[in-house]
Amino acid sequence: MRPPHLMTLADLTPRQIDKVITHARYLKQVSLPWLLPQARETAKLRMPSQSLFSKSVALLFSKRSTRTRIAAETAATLLGGRALFLGREDIQLGVNESARDSARVIGGMCQGIFARVGAHEEIEELAKYSPVPVVNALSSLWHPTQILADLLTLQENAHLFDKNLQPLVSDPKLFARAKQFYPLSKLRPLTIAYVGDSANVLHDMLVTYPRLGHQLRIASPEDEKYRAPKEVWDRVVQLECDKNIWWGKDPKEAVQGADVVVTDTWISMGQEAEKAERLQAFQGYQVTEALCREGGANPDWKFLHCLPRKPDEVDDEVFYGPRSLVFPEADNRKWTIMALFDLIIGKWDLGPYTEREDQGSQAR
Amino acid sequence: MRPPHLMTLADLTPRQIDKVITHARYLKQVSLPWLLPQARETAKLRMPSQSLFSKSVALLFSKRSTRTRIAAETAATLLGGRALFLGREDIQLGVNESARDSARVIGGMCQGIFARVGAHEEIEELAKYSPVPVVNALSSLWHPTQILADLLTLQENAHLFDKNLQPLVSDPKLFARAKQFYPLSKLRPLTIAYVGDSANVLHDMLVTYPRLGHQLRIASPEDEKYRAPKEVWDRVVQLECDKNIWWGKDPKEAVQGADVVVTDTWISMGQEAEKAERLQAFQGYQVTEALCREGGANPDWKFLHCLPRKPDEVDDEVFYGPRSLVFPEADNRKWTIMALFDLIIGKWDLGPYTEREDQGSQAR
Amino acid sequence: MRPPHLMTLADLTPRQIDKVITHARYLKQVSLPWLLPQARETAKLRMPSQSLFSKSVALLFSKRSTRTRIAAETAATLLGGRALFLGREDIQLGVNESARDSARVIGGMCQGIFARVGAHEEIEELAKYSPVPVVNALSSLWHPTQILADLLTLQENAHLFDKNLQPLVSDPKLFARAKQFYPLSKLRPLTIAYVGDSANVLHDMLVTYPRLGHQLRIASPEDEKYRAPKEVWDRVVQLECDKNIWWGKDPKEAVQGADVVVTDTWISMGQEAEKAERLQAFQGYQVTEALCREGGANPDWKFLHCLPRKPDEVDDEVFYGPRSLVFPEADNRKWTIMALFDLIIGKWDLGPYTEREDQGSQAR
Repeated sequence: MRPPHLMTLADLTPRQIDKVITHARYLKQVSLPWLLPQARETAKLRMPSQSLFSKSVALLFSKRSTRTRIAAETAATLLGGRALFLGREDIQLGVNESARDSARVIGGMCQGIFARVGAHEEIEELAKYSPVPVVNALSSLWHPTQILADLLTLQENAHLFDKNLQPLVSDPKLFARAKQFYPLSKLRPLTIAYVGDSANVLHDMLVTYPRLGHQLRIASPEDEKYRAPKEVWDRVVQLECDKNIWWGKDPKEAVQGADVVVTDTWISMGQEAEKAERLQAFQGYQVTEALCREGGANPDWKFLHCLPRKPDEVDDEVFYGPRSLVFPEADNRKWTIMALFDLIIGKWDLGPYTEREDQGSQAR
Repeated sequence: MRPPHLMTLADLTPRQIDKVITHARYLKQVSLPWLLPQARETAKLRMPSQSLFSKSVALLFSKRSTRTRIAAETAATLLGGRALFLGREDIQLGVNESARDSARVIGGMCQGIFARVGAHEEIEELAKYSPVPVVNALSSLWHPTQILADLLTLQENAHLFDKNLQPLVSDPKLFARAKQFYPLSKLRPLTIAYVGDSANVLHDMLVTYPRLGHQLRIASPEDEKYRAPKEVWDRVVQLECDKNIWWGKDPKEAVQGADVVVTDTWISMGQEAEKAERLQAFQGYQVTEALCREGGANPDWKFLHCLPRKPDEVDDEVFYGPRSLVFPEADNRKWTIMALFDLIIGKWDLGPYTEREDQGSQAR
Repeated sequence: MRPPHLMTLADLTPRQIDKVITHARYLKQVSLPWLLPQARETAKLRMPSQSLFSKSVALLFSKRSTRTRIAAETAATLLGGRALFLGREDIQLGVNESARDSARVIGGMCQGIFARVGAHEEIEELAKYSPVPVVNALSSLWHPTQILADLLTLQENAHLFDKNLQPLVSDPKLFARAKQFYPLSKLRPLTIAYVGDSANVLHDMLVTYPRLGHQLRIASPEDEKYRAPKEVWDRVVQLECDKNIWWGKDPKEAVQGADVVVTDTWISMGQEAEKAERLQAFQGYQVTEALCREGGANPDWKFLHCLPRKPDEVDDEVFYGPRSLVFPEADNRKWTIMALFDLIIGKWDLGPYTEREDQGSQAR
């Protein structure tokens, strides 16, 4: 049986994506009470899935990371397992040993691989030879775990976009007393604007949001280097996502009617040499109140950013203001990665989710 | 509710300090039997507090460390939790992201932050924005966890300074069979001499020992750079500790009547360029039998050093001799950090300690 | 009581070696079911020894490592404990502190030390001062954990060398349902050929295989630098292993009658400068089908390599072909290190092994 790898959300059906998001929310509800100070009454609490008990997940990170790494390590801990961080100092794929041999050896000792690589082909090579699931923690082309966190954040805040909805329960103390799972509300179809460079975060948005009923509006400079590469666009067309994507070069036009505005740094790791050129190319792209007002965004628009943030691409007023969902979004990296670790690495199971099924898995 | 940070022992009352020390000794007694070889009868042993169960503590260490790091990692393990080490290669506060954003993100995924920073302001910035407790693992100004270890070591060896006292039980096999907590003896008022550079270790001594009834006698070169900076001395005066502090430049005068002699390296990390100047400034400061005899120390004086040790500041005869408490002192880094992790990070509770209260927390 | 250090297999009797191998196989059988996906019925599974529960093992690695490190970290996790990795960036023995002081301090906080050092004297120095067991993870002279993995691999594949034997059960799902321990078969006396550089891997073969009844045939260039150093050969002679060792310079002569052919890289870490010279010296040493056919190896010969592998020393046909046991051999690094951690660090017990005894230790 081939292990259930995850390279991009394009690999999953909308139903599987929904399963991951619902499961992430469930794990969050069950786990948060354990993380409160003074865990005196923990004996009465329901345990989160311990599907990684005694297991190890190798984190192969060829680039530095804060969020992704900490999310993975803390998520593995909650699942009863161990994340084993291997950075550039520890292992360099293909340098001292072929990626093929490393994949087989690491996969023979660990029960999953969470890899942050350079070129996307590197992770495809790992997946080809690994006997255990490989999950993409970031590659040159894709960043599936970020969009899962964004989706969970939007679903938890569905009431901000639909006045008929109640805010979700979110207090860990109420979770501790909850007898049942508080389900997520249904998100109304949104217009999501992305203003910035076409990079891995956007690529996973392109193959995901349209399939879930949302519109995407994108502004990026006209030069081909700021647009999606062919491998990515082919997946977009194949999944028929292109029909719900508008792509231009004017940030104001992009935010028209936007319920959510998203951006990312213009200068990613390794692009420092192009800094001056990039600052020039993205002039006028900074996300601000004025930009969105003038562009005609939904007056209640919200803001997302995968972090780390530079002030170039978004000003302090927006970033630290009431529209910003960036810190809940960062927190949700943990819960969505925990859901992937549980379903993919712990259980090799991405079938349809029901709560009953999950409770069954928590017998121990 | 603001998380209970710890920047320096000046932040704690003498009663809170006593609570931490007593709790450290309690955790040590309960934990040591679990660490014996052949843990065959562990079913009958009392569990130490598992207040970090499923929790993660971020170790943000901008400087290399052996003792502090290993103490923190092993302490977190005993409390059922996970220490997540992030060194200079992993994260550089303020470089790729503001310290404010990092504090919020890390504090959103981890349940505590143990930070070893450069400038003290960095840890103050972390504490300002972190949603979880921040404990100072070392800064340019303070080193609270070291002085807690020193205090525990002195209290465990109270009989060395007072012939009316019995030595404490210290055999882990006896701990394993113990039905109750062996309390620490009361330490008589001591004269504690510090011979060397005014750095973070001494600073926490200055705000702590006088409040616990001990006298401090310090020798350091006259130049201002070897004396406590204003921020530190202001806290000393504010806590009325200055009355019990004598500060001169003659090592022999400093050790007069000393029950305990303490020193530290003259050349800390980052000061290698000043090596020649510093060796010159500290001529005659090496702690030796002769120095203490000539200075008129208590003939039974004992020796403390936070390690790592260079032979410049203390000779082998003292360092490896019977007066030296340096290795028990190093061991106690673990138990005092474990007490802080349990009380501050695990329970957000620094109130008065009773054994009964602690047992209640061990229900699971 | 002196802690039970392990510097080389020369330190162990054949009976102790057998105990470690048998115990490794036992731990593998008990552990593998826990590592299956969907661990839903884990409540019914037998726990592996939890002799490292709440304990920490320091991994002092002055050189990069993939296999040894991951094996150690995952093994410690299965035993309920924590491996604490300290690389060159974290600690440099003897630089900032004497190895003596580091050994005492680390051994005061951790319950074992697994050290990968440069010069062998460094690990001897650690063992001299450590209050807890020190296990050699690799030194300039010895590599005991590799040969334990090789031995387990050969014993698990005993049927490949003896047509009267049945293959061992190896399916983790059968292990999950097993009521008893499936014992290893007895390995018939083998002829084992080593073709390549005389380094730590070979050195532990020299002091081990002859004592277990196997013949060793070695080919290495005539220059003294490619032969075993005096310290090693003295141990070989002392254990009377030299009688069963043939050592020449012709690879074809070495593989005559060989049941197993072993090699290792010709250019180890730190020898990159000598690359051209070494490639020259080892011309004709590449392990291939032709070499073994022409040399008169047993037509069913099998291949071992400690990895990482370079194509210089063995071609793809052999390395990835059906003769190759290299990946099961790599997997067994984990189970043999787990056995050492359990017996040496967890229990300080290398006495004769019986299954009953082990089960007794699993009461918790």
